[in-house]
Amino acid sequence: MATVVLNSVNVMSQTTARRCFMSHLKGLANAGDSHLSSIPKLSVRRWSSLPGARWFTCGTGARFMSHGAAGRSAPGQTRRGALALTGAAAVAAAVVGFMANAGHFQRAEMATRIPQVAEEEVERDILERCKGFMSAPVTDISALRERKGEMCTRMEMLIMETQAEFCRALEEVDGGTFKVDRWERKEGGGGISCVMQDGKVFEKAGVNVSVVFGNLTEEAARQMRSRGKVLKGKDGKLPFCAMGVSSVIHPKNPHIPTVHFNYRYFEIEEEDGSKQWWFGGGTDLTPIYINDEDAFHFHNTLKEACDKHHSQYYPDFKKWCDRYFYIRHRGETRGIGGIFFDDLDSPSQEEAFSFVKSCARTVVPCYLPIVYKHLNDSFTAEEKDWQQVRRGRYVEFNLVYDRGVKFGLATPGSRIESILMSLPLTARWEYMHEPANGTQEAKMLEVLRNPKEWV
Amino acid sequence: MATVVLNSVNVMSQTTARRCFMSHLKGLANAGDSHLSSIPKLSVRRWSSLPGARWFTCGTGARFMSHGAAGRSAPGQTRRGALALTGAAAVAAAVVGFMANAGHFQRAEMATRIPQVAEEEVERDILERCKGFMSAPVTDISALRERKGEMCTRMEMLIMETQAEFCRALEEVDGGTFKVDRWERKEGGGGISCVMQDGKVFEKAGVNVSVVFGNLTEEAARQMRSRGKVLKGKDGKLPFCAMGVSSVIHPKNPHIPTVHFNYRYFEIEEEDGSKQWWFGGGTDLTPIYINDEDAFHFHNTLKEACDKHHSQYYPDFKKWCDRYFYIRHRGETRGIGGIFFDDLDSPSQEEAFSFVKSCARTVVPCYLPIVYKHLNDSFTAEEKDWQQVRRGRYVEFNLVYDRGVKFGLATPGSRIESILMSLPLTARWEYMHEPANGTQEAKMLEVLRNPKEWV
Repeated sequence: MATVVLNSVNVMSQTTARRCFMSHLKGLANAGDSHLSSIPKLSVRRWSSLPGARWFTCGTGARFMSHGAAGRSAPGQTRRGALALTGAAAVAAAVVGFMANAGHFQRAEMATRIPQVAEEEVERDILERCKGFMSAPVTDISALRERKGEMCTRMEMLIMETQAEFCRALEEVDGGTFKVDRWERKEGGGGISCVMQDGKVFEKAGVNVSVVFGNLTEEAARQMRSRGKVLKGKDGKLPFCAMGVSSVIHPKNPHIPTVHFNYRYFEIEEEDGSKQWWFGGGTDLTPIYINDEDAFHFHNTLKEACDKHHSQYYPDFKKWCDRYFYIRHRGETRGIGGIFFDDLDSPSQEEAFSFVKSCARTVVPCYLPIVYKHLNDSFTAEEKDWQQVRRGRYVEFNLVYDRGVKFGLATPGSRIESILMSLPLTARWEYMHEPANGTQEAKMLEVLRNPKEWV
Repeated sequence: MATVVLNSVNVMSQTTARRCFMSHLKGLANAGDSHLSSIPKLSVRRWSSLPGARWFTCGTGARFMSHGAAGRSAPGQTRRGALALTGAAAVAAAVVGFMANAGHFQRAEMATRIPQVAEEEVERDILERCKGFMSAPVTDISALRERKGEMCTRMEMLIMETQAEFCRALEEVDGGTFKVDRWERKEGGGGISCVMQDGKVFEKAGVNVSVVFGNLTEEAARQMRSRGKVLKGKDGKLPFCAMGVSSVIHPKNPHIPTVHFNYRYFEIEEEDGSKQWWFGGGTDLTPIYINDEDAFHFHNTLKEACDKHHSQYYPDFKKWCDRYFYIRHRGETRGIGGIFFDDLDSPSQEEAFSFVKSCARTVVPCYLPIVYKHLNDSFTAEEKDWQQVRRGRYVEFNLVYDRGVKFGLATPGSRIESILMSLPLTARWEYMHEPANGTQEAKMLEVLRNPKEWV
């Protein structure tokens, strides 16, 4: 059940938020969409009895089709079902991560641009798409409708859809319900945090959206310039808009891996009115025990999404991911990686967005089949202990190295609970923990110390 | 039981270490101290049946007398018993903390120097004092004997004694045994880490000594210069010696607080052969539930130790402690503080050392009475949960803010296990955890948000 939570800024309970949201939708519907006179309640969609089976591809590249619609729409063609539940969300950290993450790694090479099959956005009405969200979007729906062609609007819709799609899929498998918190940022914008804690399957699951805007602080502008951005402000001001969806899922069963993803967009308006923009993001897996089939499925699903856009994306972003999620003081990666990229501003805004959209839509088919596969795996107390030790390493990475978290914690006014929801419910630090040779734990550690190619 | 552990550098098991240590002592004894022909094994000393009762002062200012000897010795007078077990230890982090901690806070005011009653070091032989240690000192005993008047030697003996005294006191109350690891630093020096994990009373108890030396790295020298130190090296080289004892104790019972202390010394030799030196350290308490009597006892014991040296020490170092152990993103302190100081290089080396010695000898009487008092307190699952949430905050402070930890993790060759032994065995992060008004948990939080004067 959703409960009312207090926040330093402004938080609404799910019930209140939904009432406002629905009443707002009604108003908009009456104003322009007379066929929407009766607005249905948000409902948790139920998939078929063995939903995992449909997604587990092991190389076939099948994509998640929420209503059995076609995977790719031709320009102008409507794909109703598929998007009704591709909801969206983003954490404060995801967005601040924008500023902190970018530019610290070399830019992915994109010398050879391969022809890209354009996947047009579905042209359904904003209002109708909003019905499937976990809460109303951060930006006013009427404003989104007015500026529906702009990238900020299109990205906000995508992250809201990603949030909803992922949350529904997790609720389906767990049987629990996400607690939905809306929060506002005094300086402009806000977010929607969805958290499920101590569920049947998930120890802690957080899926967040944030959309923030305003004028870039001096410090943020300085950081961006230091990594090569040329920014010309008007009267010293640089209006920006940053948004993202971010999620970390910690399951209870040590045979179900932890997953993390984060997709984000940044836009800055310059003196002459022109805009600088870029995308960033990634999806990565942190198993407690290595399972080659799972690892192949996860990486291969990502590779297929990447390959549609550029043959170098997967190999480059896979390497970047291994480099980024590295716990230097331990000499090991956080997990078995996936993809990670930042500062993506080519070959065109349309194509970059299309790539990010492919990635965002790959989250459920990457992860849910693995969850269903191991749902009923039995485990020992020793396996649970090893999971707790690995959770400790997860905490170490997030607090010591993750630039989004570091930037978020250092930024006054950040929503700390949204930033730190990535931490597991429980973790453990054992002095001098070292698995015995030949054990499954040692095998996992070996992979973390020597990242592998999975595809 | 002590067990053999592997370390990237060089670790000896307690058994091997003791054998070498004892054989070395024998050799030295035969060479110069013929009365030491038979060297007794290290033994765990047993105190009277209710040891806690002797230390609990609640304002009376009684100090820990390990063998019932007098609290203060006149110059030249020997205080045998009291020092036999004032053992010593220090973590790599404690020492690297030297470089990282100092200079970030304003120097403690020491305008009014009050007359100090000199407490002379006991003139017992180095060899005899070493017998009570957890392991042989890092520096060769013959080298210590040769340079027994030098501050580096005197401090190394103090930290070794502090380690042993504290470890014995914890073993006494827990019934368990510390695992003793010796480790060497390739560049010079090493350490002795004593850890007890999953004991009867203590979830995790770590007491570390480290003694490192060599030439200051460019980066360390730059950091020191940036905080005002004028360092003139010979041929660009700055020989240094850094050492410390550091400890964090996490008990199982949520009514027994966590304690942390750290005492350290730094020395740099300049071009003309003169030495720059300073001391740093502190002791602080992190209760899970506030107990006014405990808080008074802890702070008052520290205050009495400070007051013997300077009336401004306690008030200044208490404030410094509250400022340092502050979890900024939570707006709360880590615990109820104690004392914290750094860059202490006045009024004289002798008097500064005497103060540090008083502090180090106050660790047992500050903490053990509180442990004994709550040893058999019953607790609920909810109280254990709250402890786990507070442990999570402890992890946040240590990984995000603690300069010693940060510096240690960033320094290649650091002994990570000694640095991170300060982390609890278990911790918990609950989304939006906020105790209900009027509860004991809310009362604790109120104190952490508004540090109090306890004495």
